[in-house]
Amino acid sequence: MSLSDIFFNPASVAVVGASNDPAKLTGRPIAYLQAHGYAGKIYPINPRAEAIGDLKCYPDAKSLPETPDLGLVLVGAIRVIEAVRDLAAAGCKGAIVLASGFGEAGEEGHARQAALRDAAAGMPILGPNTIGLVNLTDNIVLTPSGAMAMDEFPKGSIALVSQSGGILGSLLSRAVGRGIGFSKLVATGNEADLEASDFLDALADDTSTEVVALYLETIRNVTKFRQAAQRVLASGKRIVAYKVGRSESGARSAVSHTGALAGADEVYDALFAQLGIIRAQTFADLLDIPAALASGRRMAGNRVAIVTSTGGAATIVADNVGLAGLEMPAPDAETAAALLALDLKEAVLDRNPIDVTLAGLRPDLFRSILSILSKSPSYDAIVVVLGSSSIAQPDVVARPLLDSLKGTSKPLLAYVSAEAPEIVKHLNKSGIPAYAAPESCASALRALQPTARVNGTSVMRAAASVDISDLASGSLNEAESKALYARFGLPVTKEATASTPQEAARIATSFDGPVVIKILSNEILHKSEVGGVAIGVSPEDVEACCADMLTRVQAISSAKIDGFLVQELVQGGVELILGYNRDPQLGSYILLGAGGVTTELYQDVALRLLPLDRTEAKDMIDSLKCSALLNGFRGKPLADTDALADAILSFADMVEALDGRLQEAEINPVFVLPEGQGVRAGDGLVVLS
Amino acid sequence: MSLSDIFFNPASVAVVGASNDPAKLTGRPIAYLQAHGYAGKIYPINPRAEAIGDLKCYPDAKSLPETPDLGLVLVGAIRVIEAVRDLAAAGCKGAIVLASGFGEAGEEGHARQAALRDAAAGMPILGPNTIGLVNLTDNIVLTPSGAMAMDEFPKGSIALVSQSGGILGSLLSRAVGRGIGFSKLVATGNEADLEASDFLDALADDTSTEVVALYLETIRNVTKFRQAAQRVLASGKRIVAYKVGRSESGARSAVSHTGALAGADEVYDALFAQLGIIRAQTFADLLDIPAALASGRRMAGNRVAIVTSTGGAATIVADNVGLAGLEMPAPDAETAAALLALDLKEAVLDRNPIDVTLAGLRPDLFRSILSILSKSPSYDAIVVVLGSSSIAQPDVVARPLLDSLKGTSKPLLAYVSAEAPEIVKHLNKSGIPAYAAPESCASALRALQPTARVNGTSVMRAAASVDISDLASGSLNEAESKALYARFGLPVTKEATASTPQEAARIATSFDGPVVIKILSNEILHKSEVGGVAIGVSPEDVEACCADMLTRVQAISSAKIDGFLVQELVQGGVELILGYNRDPQLGSYILLGAGGVTTELYQDVALRLLPLDRTEAKDMIDSLKCSALLNGFRGKPLADTDALADAILSFADMVEALDGRLQEAEINPVFVLPEGQGVRAGDGLVVLS
Repeated sequence: MSLSDIFFNPASVAVVGASNDPAKLTGRPIAYLQAHGYAGKIYPINPRAEAIGDLKCYPDAKSLPETPDLGLVLVGAIRVIEAVRDLAAAGCKGAIVLASGFGEAGEEGHARQAALRDAAAGMPILGPNTIGLVNLTDNIVLTPSGAMAMDEFPKGSIALVSQSGGILGSLLSRAVGRGIGFSKLVATGNEADLEASDFLDALADDTSTEVVALYLETIRNVTKFRQAAQRVLASGKRIVAYKVGRSESGARSAVSHTGALAGADEVYDALFAQLGIIRAQTFADLLDIPAALASGRRMAGNRVAIVTSTGGAATIVADNVGLAGLEMPAPDAETAAALLALDLKEAVLDRNPIDVTLAGLRPDLFRSILSILSKSPSYDAIVVVLGSSSIAQPDVVARPLLDSLKGTSKPLLAYVSAEAPEIVKHLNKSGIPAYAAPESCASALRALQPTARVNGTSVMRAAASVDISDLASGSLNEAESKALYARFGLPVTKEATASTPQEAARIATSFDGPVVIKILSNEILHKSEVGGVAIGVSPEDVEACCADMLTRVQAISSAKIDGFLVQELVQGGVELILGYNRDPQLGSYILLGAGGVTTELYQDVALRLLPLDRTEAKDMIDSLKCSALLNGFRGKPLADTDALADAILSFADMVEALDGRLQEAEINPVFVLPEGQGVRAGDGLVVLS
Repeated sequence: MSLSDIFFNPASVAVVGASNDPAKLTGRPIAYLQAHGYAGKIYPINPRAEAIGDLKCYPDAKSLPETPDLGLVLVGAIRVIEAVRDLAAAGCKGAIVLASGFGEAGEEGHARQAALRDAAAGMPILGPNTIGLVNLTDNIVLTPSGAMAMDEFPKGSIALVSQSGGILGSLLSRAVGRGIGFSKLVATGNEADLEASDFLDALADDTSTEVVALYLETIRNVTKFRQAAQRVLASGKRIVAYKVGRSESGARSAVSHTGALAGADEVYDALFAQLGIIRAQTFADLLDIPAALASGRRMAGNRVAIVTSTGGAATIVADNVGLAGLEMPAPDAETAAALLALDLKEAVLDRNPIDVTLAGLRPDLFRSILSILSKSPSYDAIVVVLGSSSIAQPDVVARPLLDSLKGTSKPLLAYVSAEAPEIVKHLNKSGIPAYAAPESCASALRALQPTARVNGTSVMRAAASVDISDLASGSLNEAESKALYARFGLPVTKEATASTPQEAARIATSFDGPVVIKILSNEILHKSEVGGVAIGVSPEDVEACCADMLTRVQAISSAKIDGFLVQELVQGGVELILGYNRDPQLGSYILLGAGGVTTELYQDVALRLLPLDRTEAKDMIDSLKCSALLNGFRGKPLADTDALADAILSFADMVEALDGRLQEAEINPVFVLPEGQGVRAGDGLVVLS
């Protein structure tokens, strides 16, 4: 049986610790299951009861007449282990463990959680410390939560998977208040066994789910998460995630090297961006964006018509929609002519928001306006702004929207300016995403735009096979680092090492013009800080330059000197930084950043987790603010971004090949030359374990 | 009579166009005034009625038995002019004109608005095209808006001044839904005469107002606005402004020179920052921040205690509070000991959020916890996070908060995680700012922090008196521009002009080492783009360099060449840009930005409107991200920021002295040298009219 069958659609449920008291938590799940017409078998287990309601009660799992698909374990922490062991022994396919007092409760709890896993002996467990799970599509309630004490469930196509039961409850109550419905609700609790990723994966095949909303505090297994997300997205569904933990990064004020620029939160951003997951920026977005996506409608472009009968509110919506990067063109000539024919005042039709003033209270007229905008080639979505009449005359206001919905395939959204929760609820329930915050309305529209890449199913490249078995541990000097880069096909500056100033001078004569001289030492990480770099040295000055440099460096450093590096002087390139780092939670990633101090001052850095494909490498480049420098800035030539993408991939190949051994790797700077001239690694730093 | 007396507290009101039909807009104002016990005289004016209710009705203003303080004009646009003329002639002190069809309605409307101003003959007018004004403090309703049809007004200490009547209505209904109250409500409509600034100024003296909330679409007279805001802030009140028009800047993707970096919205940001006005970043903030400020409580520092009985929601609040820049330290030893003595589980007391779990449902215990935190020296504010029990047991949950409020002078706020609008309303009404969005809660806390400068009353400097009567119109070349800067005390690079390469070479020998050579022409704005700059030229190479430069420049430019500029080579400084621009709405301002391409790539620019004082000049420097470069970045010496502040003020003096004549002015770069060594204007561009 699939996880989905076991947990979302079990044919039989054993309820361990069920009681007859509906006031108690233990009395609720069976009552809920029965009240909502669960078609499967329910087996109460409680050695101290003969029957639970009209159901025969069993003393333990092994006494059951058949093997249940799922066990819902309501007993306290102390008795959980035995209950789970019994279920597993009886061949039960999975269990939900509600009790707290495990991993979240100190050392003792940790030990108990380990014992729980042992007792399960491979049987999948949701929990412990969870409020359980609800399949609203099929009315299967596997939670004792008082929040489910409702006659009619708020059904919809949003599946919510939350790592906090409290947040799940909060979102459920907020959704009910706003007329937003769900297909599945899962609280994953301590994730002793099954994780949010497992349920995300299960939802890929759930035909009643259009959107998955995730509340995340962590991702335990990033590989599993990636695969699950890719499956979900490949099935045409969308994922919206709210991830806490942003303020650590907000508070981090000082950084010492490029690696430190990328705290965990930025890596989550990178992960979501790579996969095509929409990150909810506010808590409200976690409902508001899915509510729009759940309609199944998408914009074909990025042009929005705003129709309003109240000027001020439309201005605020337009302001936010503009900030979200969408366009609001005025009606084209044909659309304007059609609107004119409705006898609206001419003055309002040459702009957007389209202010229909009192026509907003004439349903027939308003319906005609919406029909014209639905057919207009100028717009990909329509937002209707509702004013104070939505309090006084909700039906007059809502009716034309509801009537118009079927006549168009464009997204139709509403912004409700007045405090009128009932109309928000009514519209949402009727399939028109409705918003009380202009910012949410704009976020929702942004999520409905066509995206170049939403399914996260990139074609993985086969990395070049490079022999690296000869590499010793420790820091490599610049020349050695670059030699390693070169093995993976990454172009480096033309250069040669010299043991003495005299040899350096001889080598320099073979270069065409001035050269760069650097001190060579694997014990010096920042050469320029010890005076170990000289740029643009004429060949005839090289010997003296080297001698001076050696004196200078040795005066302030006791590092072992390997000699000198004589290097071509690269000019006319854009300098970037290419680096590697490892997030303890999410794994290895590549950084591409603006060169020099700007990386640190402006945090202009793009991160992408490995593995990486060419599209992602290009995305990294494009997402830098300094990419303007590569694209013909102030009349400069276009830079060789194809070669840069190749270099990023070569660097990523090296990182993957050295998996587990690579401590540090950085190229600072990498020179990006004009189109056709490639890139050059201008420096190199590699530390191996 | 002051504006406040006339409009907020008129002793008598003439209602022009009043009717007996309470279903009509014209029937409402008198009904509202009477229903809420207006103590002044009401004079209905309507030639077609004998009486309005129990009030004698007059045919026109001149027939009134006394001169009314205020006229409320309900008649349509066509009849407004005459009504206003009559009121003015009768000596009425002010009038509110509701009719639309004026400035907002094309050319005809504009003409009518001008006629209205003439008819008023100096009598102050609020409107036209407004829904009017309400003094809730004293129950004086001067609007026909259906929104005021309520038995009890939502009273409070927030005054709302809105340039949109629709938005005023929206905010009022939202505030009512959340238990937030107002002192005054003003919709300023077309602002044909009185502006938002006039009412802002009037509120400075309103003892029932603690906070002014502004909804702004524009500021017509920035000087008036500044003065009004300074008066309000000097009286100890706070101002929160929501200003639309942000997305023009969001959409602006390409910029051509530094001036263009500062679109109008950034100038509004600068204005608000200079004055100490809090800019609401979301529409919700325009109520949420004032709601916190209205309590009158302020944080003494930036440390927040979060108390919760539900973990997930507290995590979200903490995340947002951290992002807002506040601290959440764990309890100090004494506070922890006091909490321990309450028999709470020890594990929860070494952290913040302080998770009291089930204690949240024991009012006595919860009250004790709040009492301890109120007295704790570790915290400047307390946020209580309320979970699902706020739906089921609102009184149990709210009571300890309400009981604790009087026992502390610290701000006490609530975040309500579940959908429970009633408890939000109840708490707000009881003086505990309560939030349903974690982001709003964080914004509110940020606004409660102590601010270095909130009153906007800076001491204005007396600018140096400099004779500039000799300056001709047109572009100045670099040498002339710098000579002008120098007159205002702004240090410039040591330099001299030369007519010929030979003269340049002679001059160069008087410098100490290599020099900078520039082509001199007031017709070339970007010298480096035509090859007109050479840096680090040895004196012996100067003649050849100049000759080459001339050939190069003349090959691609027909500009008139004035000669060459021989300049000291400034090294070791941080390069910034100092410039001037003029916003058509808000006036002249100074820009300080990161040097080179970073200004454009990262928009690292600080703006301040003139006049400017030393504190503001320092603020400009500190607000740049690149200010890190001035403050000992990577072991570099501290830069001479005192001299930079002086240079900004000198530049500002020049701009003020040239008021009306200055078309462009920019110093790019200005070199900021190490402490004690001052700054140097490294280039100069001035265009005069």
